[in-house]
Amino acid sequence: MTVLPVAPPTFHLYDTTLRDGAQQEGLRLSVSDKLKIARVLDDWGVGFIEGGWPGANPTDTAFFAAAAAGELSLRNATLAAFGATRRAGSTASSDPLIRALLDAETEVVCVVAKSHDEHVLRALRTDLSENLAMIADTVSFLTGEGRRVFVDAEHFFDGYRANAAYALQVVEVAAQAGAEVVVLCDTNGGMLPSQMGEVVAAAVQGGAHIGIHCHNDTGCAVANSLAAIEAGAMHVQGTINGHGERTGNADLITVAADLSLKYGWPVLSDESLARSTAVSHAVAAITHVAPNPRQPYVGASAFAHKAGLHGSAIKVDANLYQHIDPRRVGNDMRMLVSDMAGRANIQLKGDELGFDLSDRDLAARITEVVKQREMEGYSYESADASFDLLLRQETGALDPAFEVLRWRALTSDDVTDDGDSEATVKVRVDDQVLARVGEGFGPLNALDHALRAALEPSHPEVAGFELTDYRVRILETGHGTDAIVRVLIDTTDGERSWTTVGVGTNVVEASWEALHDAYLWGLLDAPQSMQRAR
Amino acid sequence: MTVLPVAPPTFHLYDTTLRDGAQQEGLRLSVSDKLKIARVLDDWGVGFIEGGWPGANPTDTAFFAAAAAGELSLRNATLAAFGATRRAGSTASSDPLIRALLDAETEVVCVVAKSHDEHVLRALRTDLSENLAMIADTVSFLTGEGRRVFVDAEHFFDGYRANAAYALQVVEVAAQAGAEVVVLCDTNGGMLPSQMGEVVAAAVQGGAHIGIHCHNDTGCAVANSLAAIEAGAMHVQGTINGHGERTGNADLITVAADLSLKYGWPVLSDESLARSTAVSHAVAAITHVAPNPRQPYVGASAFAHKAGLHGSAIKVDANLYQHIDPRRVGNDMRMLVSDMAGRANIQLKGDELGFDLSDRDLAARITEVVKQREMEGYSYESADASFDLLLRQETGALDPAFEVLRWRALTSDDVTDDGDSEATVKVRVDDQVLARVGEGFGPLNALDHALRAALEPSHPEVAGFELTDYRVRILETGHGTDAIVRVLIDTTDGERSWTTVGVGTNVVEASWEALHDAYLWGLLDAPQSMQRAR
Repeated sequence: MTVLPVAPPTFHLYDTTLRDGAQQEGLRLSVSDKLKIARVLDDWGVGFIEGGWPGANPTDTAFFAAAAAGELSLRNATLAAFGATRRAGSTASSDPLIRALLDAETEVVCVVAKSHDEHVLRALRTDLSENLAMIADTVSFLTGEGRRVFVDAEHFFDGYRANAAYALQVVEVAAQAGAEVVVLCDTNGGMLPSQMGEVVAAAVQGGAHIGIHCHNDTGCAVANSLAAIEAGAMHVQGTINGHGERTGNADLITVAADLSLKYGWPVLSDESLARSTAVSHAVAAITHVAPNPRQPYVGASAFAHKAGLHGSAIKVDANLYQHIDPRRVGNDMRMLVSDMAGRANIQLKGDELGFDLSDRDLAARITEVVKQREMEGYSYESADASFDLLLRQETGALDPAFEVLRWRALTSDDVTDDGDSEATVKVRVDDQVLARVGEGFGPLNALDHALRAALEPSHPEVAGFELTDYRVRILETGHGTDAIVRVLIDTTDGERSWTTVGVGTNVVEASWEALHDAYLWGLLDAPQSMQRAR
Repeated sequence: MTVLPVAPPTFHLYDTTLRDGAQQEGLRLSVSDKLKIARVLDDWGVGFIEGGWPGANPTDTAFFAAAAAGELSLRNATLAAFGATRRAGSTASSDPLIRALLDAETEVVCVVAKSHDEHVLRALRTDLSENLAMIADTVSFLTGEGRRVFVDAEHFFDGYRANAAYALQVVEVAAQAGAEVVVLCDTNGGMLPSQMGEVVAAAVQGGAHIGIHCHNDTGCAVANSLAAIEAGAMHVQGTINGHGERTGNADLITVAADLSLKYGWPVLSDESLARSTAVSHAVAAITHVAPNPRQPYVGASAFAHKAGLHGSAIKVDANLYQHIDPRRVGNDMRMLVSDMAGRANIQLKGDELGFDLSDRDLAARITEVVKQREMEGYSYESADASFDLLLRQETGALDPAFEVLRWRALTSDDVTDDGDSEATVKVRVDDQVLARVGEGFGPLNALDHALRAALEPSHPEVAGFELTDYRVRILETGHGTDAIVRVLIDTTDGERSWTTVGVGTNVVEASWEALHDAYLWGLLDAPQSMQRAR
């Protein structure tokens, strides 16, 4: 098979989650979010972290101020500030945005420059030679101030298509003025991998160090990045989890894993690579954008097998059915329980959770129960803790810490400091019957407080239980508010994380069921290890 | 720039959403779901629809029975049934699964065959020559029964790497036995685009018609498909929205749009291509998998612009900032309102909704309000109807059809046929004060019923309002059940769809706010057209 190229002597992983990634619809990052993400990126092992555009908005300015004030001490990565070339008909030294770039006090600055002639003439409204002067002046001023300068050549590929000579001239002028890397940006994201090689090779031939910045508008952000790298780019820009404007940027996790595991390039250490899944989850937790289970390498489903066909064959040799060892990226293989699964899959899942389901009748009975429950709307694929409880129930191994006798919840627009909802629960715990009332914001919060109040005297560890995510999904559309609802709750006690599921026509009832199961599982005497954050 | 190849005389778009797509974690399709999706695919314009594996599970068998019984009359597409080669040491004519394939009564059958020597020896546990005999026997038997036969060469690329001669022999044997197309499957998904060309060209050189089937494990499913097509594959398999096991299959929507709009190949008519966004949404509605806003071409964000930089430049010429005209795929450009947005973006958004915000003070005031509300957790990017209400409020143009004076909701474990919840609302409508009670499953359902009861006498059109989706998102993790919650509700009246947002520490209160806004917007005298299903 085609031999892949060897790694260049210097290669840059350049992360722009904090700048271009933040352009994603629905994404909003505070200064504190940005600092947290920067620390995650630094721990992971990227070479460069683009922190934002100082002077363009208060958040980014404050981020760089905080970093300069010592709130961000990077161990591995170099911080970069993003900006633009100076305004037309002016000088770099007198441009307030260039001043803001210097004030950010970063080792690297990355300035965006127009490389598409139409954009110069129509969006920038200046002439082609002034644009070149703006680039040369800005780069040489910033290098003169002691900065390492990278130049983002905006709309480079559309520009090359329209006027290749001018686009290449922009690269040449930037490099001659002292730019360390000139990054070819597929700003509108319309390129295809088979078109990349020729264009990137033409730019590389000019002698500059070339970088690549791709968007996913043709579904090829990663492949376009790889094609550019094969053609000689020694610097790749991307974002964690592919965040970014429109369809997003190239996912730096996928690019880094492809380069490490398919090309064998040392772009990350083995230890860093094995943190990739954790990095994806950490950024998802900060951005509040749910992780994509189908994300290459690090998605929850990336090494999950459902087909009965595979289920039985995987027993032979798992490596016949996965393209890499998932542990290399900190992920793991999972067997899915589903109504498409046969007994073999249920047995494998049982093994995973520590249950002996080798008895065929028992396995068949449990398979029937799972099929029935999934028909009602339950999904155990994503709720290992609920599945564990079901297995214990069916095998007679469930020893519940408490039993609920009654519950109710009332919500109204009558709001006090203690909430707008009131709930009562009546539970039997250690042969005592306790009725407790809880207040809170929302019925689930009130129910949670009431249940905690009832359980805490006998089970003080519930004080450490914390709900970390709560997802509601309507299962049947077209039925209005009485559709069937599935609720998934993630709970943690600081060490373990577990997911439970509830189903009903009522969001409160389904939530209560998932909450109830979360406490029940958390209080099991010898719960299975279930540390995966799902 | 590199010239792309011209279209081959015959080219197949082969959809396997109903078979391989259904392997996705969390996806469950009933017979009725499958029939609905098949109708959507047929309307769209794919050449082939793989309906499932008859005999392998009751759902797929029932699907083909329903199709044969006339419940599925395809106008454009050809239905295909999926199966495997006969068992080792047997005959095709006596194999019950081959019989089930014939019983499915489809014009096309697609049989999967092993093409990786290790899989033959270790998973199938037979010898290499018997595997070839199984392929030849199965294909010639099925063609003898009048079927068009396609062969899926499973694990072809890993097989080629291990034993190229044997992998190519599988292709040759299948073609000689009468297979119309031999589909090279990257079953484990580990390929890269630059490795595709040589392998596919070797298979094409053998003389068989070659197809391609890719998964997204390296983030390159679309690019690998395109590389194979450039090397001579005349048949591409994929799924709508990229559904599929692990990281999913190649997204057939992206592949078709790339081939149509980048290569200029007539794989879909212009009218079909313009239905792509609707096809993506229709399948999402049936699968209950939320559409990916970043999906290339058809995602809600695919042509959405947030950057202040772009916001002002887009006024010059939108085509400078998008890689295609979004209407070609049935999508449209959107300006996003966000706390990163300047006044320019708010004004553009106002234009879109029909508000004149050219007054700078007014625009600045609204920008401040939006920033404040977004800080509290509101997101107007995804809730155009709530943003419309906010603009009306701020410009004094809001003429609400009703005013809520009081509400409350009670839920308990005391369930009757009318539900487990009771709600009361007191509203002023047309100078009348009405208090109404509603029962339902869950507080939102009960509140919905109570509000409808109060509004219906004066506004009978509310009977046609239907909640179609309901999404809950926790905005702050680590705060347990009292975290801030954002609720988005999609409502339709059969013609228009609109999205509203509610925020609070209480899921019921936030849901009530979104529900209230949904009725308020739906009852506006002259609501703006807002037909996009978000």
